[in-house]
Amino acid sequence: MANKQTGIEHRTLHELSGAEAVSLMQSGELTCETYVTALLARVAERDAAVRAWVHLDKAQIMNQAQDLDRVPVGQRGPLHGLPVGIKDIMLTKDMPTQYNSKLFESTEPIATDAAAIAVLRARGALIFGKTTTTEFASSKQGNWHQNLTRNAHAEDRTPGGSSSGSGAAVADVQIPVALGTQTGGSIIRPAAFNGCYGFKPTWGAVSREGIGQWSTTNDTCGFFSRTIDDLKLLLDAYSIEDDTPPRQFTIKSSRIAFCKTSLWPNAGPGTQSAWEKAKTLLTTEGAQITDLELPEDFSHLNDWHDIIIAKEGQASFLGAYLADKSKLEDSIQGHVEDRKKYTRKQQSEAYDNCARLRSVWDSIAGQYEVVVVPSVPDEAPLGLEWTGDMSFNSMWTVLHCPVIHVPGFKGQSGMPVGLSLVSARFTDQQLLETAQVIGQLWQEKGSDGTIPENKKLE
Amino acid sequence: MANKQTGIEHRTLHELSGAEAVSLMQSGELTCETYVTALLARVAERDAAVRAWVHLDKAQIMNQAQDLDRVPVGQRGPLHGLPVGIKDIMLTKDMPTQYNSKLFESTEPIATDAAAIAVLRARGALIFGKTTTTEFASSKQGNWHQNLTRNAHAEDRTPGGSSSGSGAAVADVQIPVALGTQTGGSIIRPAAFNGCYGFKPTWGAVSREGIGQWSTTNDTCGFFSRTIDDLKLLLDAYSIEDDTPPRQFTIKSSRIAFCKTSLWPNAGPGTQSAWEKAKTLLTTEGAQITDLELPEDFSHLNDWHDIIIAKEGQASFLGAYLADKSKLEDSIQGHVEDRKKYTRKQQSEAYDNCARLRSVWDSIAGQYEVVVVPSVPDEAPLGLEWTGDMSFNSMWTVLHCPVIHVPGFKGQSGMPVGLSLVSARFTDQQLLETAQVIGQLWQEKGSDGTIPENKKLE
Repeated sequence: MANKQTGIEHRTLHELSGAEAVSLMQSGELTCETYVTALLARVAERDAAVRAWVHLDKAQIMNQAQDLDRVPVGQRGPLHGLPVGIKDIMLTKDMPTQYNSKLFESTEPIATDAAAIAVLRARGALIFGKTTTTEFASSKQGNWHQNLTRNAHAEDRTPGGSSSGSGAAVADVQIPVALGTQTGGSIIRPAAFNGCYGFKPTWGAVSREGIGQWSTTNDTCGFFSRTIDDLKLLLDAYSIEDDTPPRQFTIKSSRIAFCKTSLWPNAGPGTQSAWEKAKTLLTTEGAQITDLELPEDFSHLNDWHDIIIAKEGQASFLGAYLADKSKLEDSIQGHVEDRKKYTRKQQSEAYDNCARLRSVWDSIAGQYEVVVVPSVPDEAPLGLEWTGDMSFNSMWTVLHCPVIHVPGFKGQSGMPVGLSLVSARFTDQQLLETAQVIGQLWQEKGSDGTIPENKKLE
Repeated sequence: MANKQTGIEHRTLHELSGAEAVSLMQSGELTCETYVTALLARVAERDAAVRAWVHLDKAQIMNQAQDLDRVPVGQRGPLHGLPVGIKDIMLTKDMPTQYNSKLFESTEPIATDAAAIAVLRARGALIFGKTTTTEFASSKQGNWHQNLTRNAHAEDRTPGGSSSGSGAAVADVQIPVALGTQTGGSIIRPAAFNGCYGFKPTWGAVSREGIGQWSTTNDTCGFFSRTIDDLKLLLDAYSIEDDTPPRQFTIKSSRIAFCKTSLWPNAGPGTQSAWEKAKTLLTTEGAQITDLELPEDFSHLNDWHDIIIAKEGQASFLGAYLADKSKLEDSIQGHVEDRKKYTRKQQSEAYDNCARLRSVWDSIAGQYEVVVVPSVPDEAPLGLEWTGDMSFNSMWTVLHCPVIHVPGFKGQSGMPVGLSLVSARFTDQQLLETAQVIGQLWQEKGSDGTIPENKKLE
């Protein structure tokens, strides 16, 4: 599809960022109908390969687009016409919500919106469709009853999980932005494997009402995009504010920490290489790099995280288990059956230790402009059932701090690799400001070539 | 209605405890149809005075009862036939959920069950109807769009809130048990004002999925009943377990602390009198009473609680606010508009301080069999709009510990008064064991007469 309507050269409409598209639609230079038609064409071309969607109804999309096009210019919302993919554990009043669970196979919508969806609609967004998830956003083995999603860049590799479809659809340029959730690494991992931005805001920034629950202490709603501007649009839409407006960030003379964490031995060649390149690039630009070693007790965070998700999962999945445990994936049954035999004492201690380290982390993070940490061990592994290792992510989730995956590098197979930036709680807007500058550097100079187009399975 | 069917003398069927009724229904000595017919008769007699129900469909109840009666003896669940009242902020697949909000006036059910409801159904309970709440379980002024609920004992007094109908219906012997939620004092307060047991378990004991959200840090699902046996039934149904099975509790030689907290100046004559009587009764029975003074920083818990509910409310109510703020009660609008101007720094500090005191509290509580604290300033105040003062409750909510309101005394107007028992996190079953013995003592000897029947308004 050509894009004479927009005047933007050299790109087709579906490649616009969300922010660009919203701006054109707000001013009336682009109709929402034209825009989503371009996205639907991209989906049609790519869906057989990527399989990111569990619910996508063209008529429903066009109806929303036509409604939005009827809103007079000047009365259009801050997300006017922005098509958003929704992870299929979030209630949408006009689309089914199936949690990739055999217990929720009905195609009838549950007639209410999650609070996060209500915000999107009120801001003028278009709810494009529901994206794939692993069962109840929990299982690492996928347990795919629905379509088995593929990585945006290789049909024989996992897109990561549990926000599988959201990460793959955004990276595959089928949709500008999508919502996901993270309990362990369910936003950062698919962002890393597919090569797009993934942003997990500070815990609680977005309401979890109407979103499938696993671990109240960890569950966090967040976003996927291909640009930082799109994330800024979303943060503003959700009224996520720091105490002070973000300062402009420049790399020169900035204090940047690189923190391998105690889990660094899990890092493979892709992440190791990106780590060194990132450091070199930032140093070359004049950053003051520090190798940050965390206090010893941070090395227990993953264990505490495991205790918390197991014990909280026991209560979260009890209803589903009692309804029909045979329809639940084994690890979910395991939570309810308390197979790990964690005690309440361990649970209390895990809560208290994690809570204690949150303020310690804020103090440490406050000494730097930003802290760079690994996102995933390496590029997306081969195979589709296992959605990958969340070991690098859990600690930041349970520390409640904002995390953004920034793409820019490539692994040994030419798949996307990136790194995460983390900061203190409630510095979400500042983190985006910083990530914008660092992301631009890494994407310009981090990779020796372009990310491959999706490779067909033989 | 006579109760020849059960052989239980001197009481009508609707007066059975839930545990008694379940036992008779499990064995087939009582049909569920007969039981709920008796409850419906009580409701019919009392509903005009108390107005506890926003949804109550006789045919729907009878259908469930008949279905349950068809389950063969021996295959009946642990809550077989137990009729449960459900606070109207919890999704029920076959009944509307209206949150007492002008934004949710549809009488169509939202076709899914909250996880807490799914557990009840799977255990064999009967979902009896939806009970009144203040708007989004938030406003203290009630903001009653629906029926304005009255106290079970006086039509001119508040039943408390926000779990208004659950507390009133249980205390009024219309239903044996009900679900409520507490963010500040929304279980303990209506239990105290209506004179029944109210139990707020350890934070997270029951899943919040499908329950209206205000403050993730505080929102807790809990129960109303007229007996401890009923609470035990519910705790078991929700698989709420301590690390070790509860020990039998005897008052003689037990270490019991009385903790007035820094808010004691709020206590009126009813609570002051109950306090002294409770102490005397326990001392007479041989308990070792300690007057417990908490470390100074506990006096800040209510301030921190206020910061947390305000800031978390900002995210929770954003969707509703954007949809149509004119339909929201003023204090809810205030959260979204951040009228109190709390900073993110204050929010972080509130989180961290509360978290720190949780383990301090557990250590303190562990030195006693149980700690007695005030539930409410006094008997239910006159008037129906304001649902009362939660100042005594917030600190225990944000400390995440289990709390039970134990009735037994009377105030100057002859209205029910009681006190709360609190203990360390994850000692829920032990707390019930202790409350059973103490409750029996207080109810036998705490009051000079019986609680008055509901007084008609002139």
